[in-house]
Amino acid sequence: MGQGLTRRQLGEIRMLQKKASARREQGLFVVEGLRMVREAPKDDVVKLVLSESMAAKPGMAQEFPDADVISDDSFCKISDTVSPQGILAVVRQREHAMDSLLSGDKALFLEGIQDPGNVGTILRTAEAAGVSGLFMDRLTADIYSPKVVRSTMGSIFRVPFMVSDDLKKTLCDVKRAGFTAYAAHLGGRSLYELEMKSPRAFLIGNEGGGLTDELASLADERVYIPMQGRVESLNAAVAAAILMYR
Amino acid sequence: MGQGLTRRQLGEIRMLQKKASARREQGLFVVEGLRMVREAPKDDVVKLVLSESMAAKPGMAQEFPDADVISDDSFCKISDTVSPQGILAVVRQREHAMDSLLSGDKALFLEGIQDPGNVGTILRTAEAAGVSGLFMDRLTADIYSPKVVRSTMGSIFRVPFMVSDDLKKTLCDVKRAGFTAYAAHLGGRSLYELEMKSPRAFLIGNEGGGLTDELASLADERVYIPMQGRVESLNAAVAAAILMYR
Repeated sequence: MGQGLTRRQLGEIRMLQKKASARREQGLFVVEGLRMVREAPKDDVVKLVLSESMAAKPGMAQEFPDADVISDDSFCKISDTVSPQGILAVVRQREHAMDSLLSGDKALFLEGIQDPGNVGTILRTAEAAGVSGLFMDRLTADIYSPKVVRSTMGSIFRVPFMVSDDLKKTLCDVKRAGFTAYAAHLGGRSLYELEMKSPRAFLIGNEGGGLTDELASLADERVYIPMQGRVESLNAAVAAAILMYR
Repeated sequence: MGQGLTRRQLGEIRMLQKKASARREQGLFVVEGLRMVREAPKDDVVKLVLSESMAAKPGMAQEFPDADVISDDSFCKISDTVSPQGILAVVRQREHAMDSLLSGDKALFLEGIQDPGNVGTILRTAEAAGVSGLFMDRLTADIYSPKVVRSTMGSIFRVPFMVSDDLKKTLCDVKRAGFTAYAAHLGGRSLYELEMKSPRAFLIGNEGGGLTDELASLADERVYIPMQGRVESLNAAVAAAILMYR
């Protein structure tokens, strides 16, 4: 196995865990846990770190010969979880080409979805529903943050996505590529009355306020998920799931 | 407005926030925030507590003349949230009659759903989807815990539910009442191939392990939500939503 890590290197990993700006500047992020590390594309793994107790487990030295081994205490300090499993990888962020994002017949746009758990769950559901591309604005929770990464359950390595500085422009590009855009909207037509075209893009807005008028107005159609009782809105991940699975 | 609260009373509210056993023994629970307090049925509210700064806001004294007012510091100590709004109510737990749980054409069974956010989101989605009754076992996160209550967004006051000591027996009762039971199951028939009968009950299992064989074997049919890619399972709240909205 490799050497341990210097204090500086430990500090760098901590920064990647904590700061979106550090992740963005360096084009790196951290994944934790054996399962997620195994899912990471080998070519993208920049550094592998094991805790001493994890490294002592059968098979670990064979599977991860190049890993750096650090004390359990040090590992705790660079881990984002309360009970760390003792393995993490620093992974290169990947740029996905527009072609791959639009290679299927479903795409998804997220605008201002702030809850990291929701974003991760949406990515996981998107893979299951056969969505080929996920587009997000900068107000959506950072997809490379530990909590989002964790809640994707590995889908972050399999679903092409793009963080856009100008989601309206990106939507125009996607529409120009032939996609019909459907905005989740309380003022829309019922999901059950709508015959949806393919390929299609769904737009999902902020948990509290929904989509901005600017983005919603670019949609070809507004679609409403019927709600009974006195519910004012659905959880963003639930709404996205119902649309993607329609 | 009412008096303040004694240390003992403050301690009791803290216990209700923290301990499922205390909630269960006393048949009480706590809701926080102006919106949730307003949603609580007046007859079920046992105690209303405001922080001094909340009580000083316009209209509060008029709307809540019987509230006990305590210092902001004391309020922080009995609140479950990081930035408390300064209002909470102690509310009586309600027993829902089987008749009301089965008054509609959809019911939902949760077995061992441990994530409080999932349980709350499921209750909220259930109301929106027109589910008339929610049945849970004791391994499912306590519906009266602060995090579940919060994430129901008020649906806890509107959707009849029952925590069952014997979910299998309860399912038999519900089937005897004419409901067809559909178990969410990786080994089931595709959701899209299935013509579902009404009234129907959906069974959703634990996030990691799914339904127990004992409960699943009582279902009339096993149903599988098709998943593309390499996703192994859907988030429990997402799976429940897709089934309820089918």
